[in-house]
Amino acid sequence: MSNPLQPAQHRTAAPASRRLELIAIPGLPEFEPGDDFSAVVLTALRNAAIALHAKDVIVIAQKVVSKCEGAYVFLDEVTPGPRALELAAATGKDPRLVEAILSETSEVLRAREGVIVVANRAGHVMANAGVDASNIPPTGPQRVLKLPADADLSARHIRAALEAATGLRLSVVINDSWGRAWRNGTVGHAVGVSGIPALWDRRGEQDMYGRELRVTQIGYADEIAAAASLVMGAAGERQPVVIVRGLEPPCGDGSACDLIRDKSRDLFR
Amino acid sequence: MSNPLQPAQHRTAAPASRRLELIAIPGLPEFEPGDDFSAVVLTALRNAAIALHAKDVIVIAQKVVSKCEGAYVFLDEVTPGPRALELAAATGKDPRLVEAILSETSEVLRAREGVIVVANRAGHVMANAGVDASNIPPTGPQRVLKLPADADLSARHIRAALEAATGLRLSVVINDSWGRAWRNGTVGHAVGVSGIPALWDRRGEQDMYGRELRVTQIGYADEIAAAASLVMGAAGERQPVVIVRGLEPPCGDGSACDLIRDKSRDLFR
Repeated sequence: MSNPLQPAQHRTAAPASRRLELIAIPGLPEFEPGDDFSAVVLTALRNAAIALHAKDVIVIAQKVVSKCEGAYVFLDEVTPGPRALELAAATGKDPRLVEAILSETSEVLRAREGVIVVANRAGHVMANAGVDASNIPPTGPQRVLKLPADADLSARHIRAALEAATGLRLSVVINDSWGRAWRNGTVGHAVGVSGIPALWDRRGEQDMYGRELRVTQIGYADEIAAAASLVMGAAGERQPVVIVRGLEPPCGDGSACDLIRDKSRDLFR
Repeated sequence: MSNPLQPAQHRTAAPASRRLELIAIPGLPEFEPGDDFSAVVLTALRNAAIALHAKDVIVIAQKVVSKCEGAYVFLDEVTPGPRALELAAATGKDPRLVEAILSETSEVLRAREGVIVVANRAGHVMANAGVDASNIPPTGPQRVLKLPADADLSARHIRAALEAATGLRLSVVINDSWGRAWRNGTVGHAVGVSGIPALWDRRGEQDMYGRELRVTQIGYADEIAAAASLVMGAAGERQPVVIVRGLEPPCGDGSACDLIRDKSRDLFR
């Protein structure tokens, strides 16, 4: 870490090795609406003989939080409006699915065959407002899953429950895999954050040679989300909760919305 | 992992815990043009009593690769052309720096006060084509550092040298911290890859319920790059080489260019 009291040129050449560990919590069951997520996780930890440590960051796949919160939309109950019908025609998607997407959307950025890119209600830019049918049990009427209604709030509640049960200072990141502009492939992004800054503002700190860093805001919770995504897997692994151990986050709390670039300063909307 | 021979519904509920470890190699010196990067890393590993393991992914900050390759531009030796003068006026940047940026650029996407977003020669979209002055020793004439001329090739050479010295099957990712469309904060991205697929195509695999995944290409090397970036730090930490241990990448080799979305299919250029 940069230390203003110690000139850069006097630093020792061999700092201690920094290590980071990511541990997927094994043995989690399928989550159902109304499940007490934190209680289920604490049971799985006990069963696996894994103890949480102070400062652990718990990264949780959005999908299991949404399942516990029952954030399902039953497509048979959806009546598509004119805008949904229009976008369904343009994209080839089910008009009821498009209506479900629009109900989660603050702005449609692009719509093409097979693709709707939107800013969701919180302002995160992603495909389909995160409304998705994968990894949902295929029983009963056809349904899709939305993002948690307020993922920052969900993260806060889960963190409070885990902290209360363990007496430890913890953090929570809820992540989801999104496509990006300019690059192929989905990457984990933070959609809910509690206990750490989502954006790490290092402006004012110094580089290796004591020069002030000019533009260094780090998408800290997004990097944590991407790292955990490596361990979760995207297909059938069923490892939606990952402990990230060994981070030394700056003090402070944040919101995943801190990661959303203000529309007025965004050159690509 | 999805296994076509084993129906999804028969999977056991408690898979073994997956763990991932990231280890920053301590004690690395300042890198100078002409340094044998792999030899320096192997010495640091010996000094720190860290052994590489088979399948380790070595993630290297672009900056130290560029330093070893001497990818400096001395601003006093640059004569800005008309396009550089025009962009310098539009952005408020040093015209010589802009000329250095343009020499690394295939297309300028946006230019505003303080910001030039380009596709670099390889096609990666980023600010300033990665040309940067931070963490360069402040002695001698003013200079800036470019990306490695061919970061995939650099990764391949480093991997070959590390594999030859250790007899192990290894992979290499060269990363850099870039800003993104729509989101605040920089995140590690892969700019050079050798030994693993950069893009993990999981289409055709099944979700938890045996349904075929429709759109799941994972930005695998980008997620690895972001994870390692958490350990490297962006300011003065001098920990530019990180071992990622415990990944189970698919077979195959790739190029960081696999992560570049074809311009014809990019809705945001």
